[in-house]
Amino acid sequence: MTATADAGVIGMAVMGRNLAKNIESRGNTVALYNRTWAVTEEVMKWEHAQGAKFVPCKELKDFVAAIKRPRRIIIMVQAGKGTDAVIEQIAPLLEEGDILVDGGNAYWGDTDRRNDLAKQWKFHFVGMGVSGGEEGARLGPAIMPGGDKAAVDKLMPILTAISAKAGKGNAEPCVTWCGTGSAGHFVKMVHNGIEYADMQMIAETYDLMPRGLQMGHDQCAQTFRTWNEGELGSFLIELTGKIADRRDEDPKVTAKNPDAFLFDAIRDAAGQKGTGKWTTIAALEAGVAIPSITAAVDARLISSLQTERIAAFKATRKLIKRKKKIRLTVDEVANALYGAKIAAYAQGMCLIKAASAQRGYQTDIGSIPAIWRGGCIIRAVFLDRITTAFKKQADLANLVTSEEFIGDVARTLPILRKVVATASTAGIPVPALSAALSYIESYTTGRLPAYVIQAQRDAFGSHTYERLKKPGKFIHTEWLG
Amino acid sequence: MTATADAGVIGMAVMGRNLAKNIESRGNTVALYNRTWAVTEEVMKWEHAQGAKFVPCKELKDFVAAIKRPRRIIIMVQAGKGTDAVIEQIAPLLEEGDILVDGGNAYWGDTDRRNDLAKQWKFHFVGMGVSGGEEGARLGPAIMPGGDKAAVDKLMPILTAISAKAGKGNAEPCVTWCGTGSAGHFVKMVHNGIEYADMQMIAETYDLMPRGLQMGHDQCAQTFRTWNEGELGSFLIELTGKIADRRDEDPKVTAKNPDAFLFDAIRDAAGQKGTGKWTTIAALEAGVAIPSITAAVDARLISSLQTERIAAFKATRKLIKRKKKIRLTVDEVANALYGAKIAAYAQGMCLIKAASAQRGYQTDIGSIPAIWRGGCIIRAVFLDRITTAFKKQADLANLVTSEEFIGDVARTLPILRKVVATASTAGIPVPALSAALSYIESYTTGRLPAYVIQAQRDAFGSHTYERLKKPGKFIHTEWLG
Repeated sequence: MTATADAGVIGMAVMGRNLAKNIESRGNTVALYNRTWAVTEEVMKWEHAQGAKFVPCKELKDFVAAIKRPRRIIIMVQAGKGTDAVIEQIAPLLEEGDILVDGGNAYWGDTDRRNDLAKQWKFHFVGMGVSGGEEGARLGPAIMPGGDKAAVDKLMPILTAISAKAGKGNAEPCVTWCGTGSAGHFVKMVHNGIEYADMQMIAETYDLMPRGLQMGHDQCAQTFRTWNEGELGSFLIELTGKIADRRDEDPKVTAKNPDAFLFDAIRDAAGQKGTGKWTTIAALEAGVAIPSITAAVDARLISSLQTERIAAFKATRKLIKRKKKIRLTVDEVANALYGAKIAAYAQGMCLIKAASAQRGYQTDIGSIPAIWRGGCIIRAVFLDRITTAFKKQADLANLVTSEEFIGDVARTLPILRKVVATASTAGIPVPALSAALSYIESYTTGRLPAYVIQAQRDAFGSHTYERLKKPGKFIHTEWLG
Repeated sequence: MTATADAGVIGMAVMGRNLAKNIESRGNTVALYNRTWAVTEEVMKWEHAQGAKFVPCKELKDFVAAIKRPRRIIIMVQAGKGTDAVIEQIAPLLEEGDILVDGGNAYWGDTDRRNDLAKQWKFHFVGMGVSGGEEGARLGPAIMPGGDKAAVDKLMPILTAISAKAGKGNAEPCVTWCGTGSAGHFVKMVHNGIEYADMQMIAETYDLMPRGLQMGHDQCAQTFRTWNEGELGSFLIELTGKIADRRDEDPKVTAKNPDAFLFDAIRDAAGQKGTGKWTTIAALEAGVAIPSITAAVDARLISSLQTERIAAFKATRKLIKRKKKIRLTVDEVANALYGAKIAAYAQGMCLIKAASAQRGYQTDIGSIPAIWRGGCIIRAVFLDRITTAFKKQADLANLVTSEEFIGDVARTLPILRKVVATASTAGIPVPALSAALSYIESYTTGRLPAYVIQAQRDAFGSHTYERLKKPGKFIHTEWLG
């Protein structure tokens, strides 16, 4: 077989086929391979495959042979054992200088393990996060490659071509080398963690409207469309504005109420695929607090106990009173959401910074928010500001107190306080907004009651403590003696 | 050497020597061993060793030979590699029927690993949590053994003798078989997680008094002493009442202010040894939300950035206003703390229940709070009530809605709402109280905004959702088509 393909994609599920089409659409010939040949055959019948420069291969050795050297091969299969199986099969077929890319949603620990294996290979291995779902993959995702910089540099012509674009004149590709080792998948994981927080904060602010402000879903949708024009402008706000007033089309429902909303029919039990949990676990291991992200993960867990909650609600409905009306404006709700967003992104950036320092990723922190500006689920106007924040202060300790955001924090904090207090009083749970509020308050408080904890620990377990004026010197007091 | 000892203790640091003394004081002869002989020699000069039936051994083989068969040996060394080293050295010396106990603060994953190894041994291995610090170890700790039930049964005469006592007439030993495998260390870890939450909630409620109610530390101490007489009565509340009004004895301070409090000199940077993080990680892996415990871990992490916080405080002091006075009574603060405590313990119990089901521990959930009533850091009047709650309803889904506590939740929830709202408005961070509030509200809410999240996930990633009336059937909608 003559090598005619500029790149190859392994895995012809939704993400793989769309990424292959994206690469092809930039003027490349792309070799395709899937474990089950029938799937590749099906892809060749796909509308986007008509006339495309695809080279479908039934056998892996033919697939490898079809690609020009040095080969650029992207694996887009289910993370975990699926990826391991592909790597094991293809490794003996690759040659010096070839670049094998895992573009799946790999756990960064697995990428570390594969990077260790890669040391004995003559080809390069790159762990790469890809965000944007089906549409992003085909038209332009956010791309987060990590590992050997020289190898990533060789991929860059293709990656910059296929990535989303953002910034001035939509000319800046949403791809950057995220750092050594598993940095690409680590950054992708934090992206997903932030996505959890974003979605939960949106859900909580949404909840305040029908529950507290007596707004219908059509009014909520309109509100989100208005928000999308301002500083909250983002994919998720826009999406919520598009879907919130969707009518239910179930005949049983429409027979009784032709104007019923689909939102009201959806079971309030949120699923999760695990990247949110990974983020919290990674943060705990790194010693970084990301309470907004964790609150979002926990909120999904509690929501998933829907049957149990209904029983709890019925058992407590006469005992626990909740207000049916709250006094807030939608503008206040928007400001609270914006303030809480700053806190969530601050936490995510702190985690990447700490992980890079601890794990030697050499991540250019300021370059990360820039590549999230397009293609991915958390893309937002706001990320332009975060990019600016890091341009102004490369060694930024925390976004909350950055030159770029300190004014926004000061403006929105009193409103976030009011919204959390109002929801708390009314009995409407706002765990992620509360976590954001506590985070900002704690971080900007000069004196926290951790002194009580330190005294207790020293009193019952001789754990010692520092005096304010002598940090670093640990002393013990016989508290009860 | 003649075997004269009824038991042996390895590791003569604070916990080991005190546990050895405890065993000895119940009429047993105890063999002692420490890697460094000088430490054992030092122990023999200890006041509590005078006249004690201790058999100090310089060599491990002599130590083993000194103990009557079947041997009962408790390892009390630093968790991790220290424990592994001891096990490796002693394993070849033990005989059939002997029982080797790890009484250290082992990570339950390590105990799993050691249980796997134990399958090839002819002696038994028991992973056992011990709580109570130095004093508890000597006079009566809470003891949480897990693993082979028959082996634990053989240990029980000693364990019941040395454990703390609680319940009617202080006659119920604070020890029970926690379940198979690593259940003992898992339960001990959750105990520590709850301890984190307890301490953070106490710190937050404490903070409200000097910061919002203009109370001095002496008034706070008095308040805690009063609280200790009521439903909050517990080791940690009592301890806080004893230490809060401690005067600073530093000459530099007393020269200026002879009445200065030591609390005011303590650096507000809380340390942690890791069991709180372990608990949150275990909960995420088990799919159980424990937001109060996690908030406590995060609060310690944020507090530890004390230098960074001071800078953040200075940068924001003119921009962020905080109230100097809040309107709450100390009684309201106490009620909020009590309500939040119920939530934290509910979370801990849910975690043990889920872990037992998932990991096959066969834990008798209701027996666990009973053994925390004495000896350990979280011992509290309140644990009698939790024990009763499980006696009334063995298959309890959640303490929050238990027959025993539903009235307390209904009574304290409006006050917890008020306290969180008041603190939020004033700019005083209360992350653990907020997390508890959100937990109770979310758990007892019939309709959470997770429907927004499910709709978003289906719209951008085809993740599917369920309809309320058809749980279990996952469907997809073309939201934007």
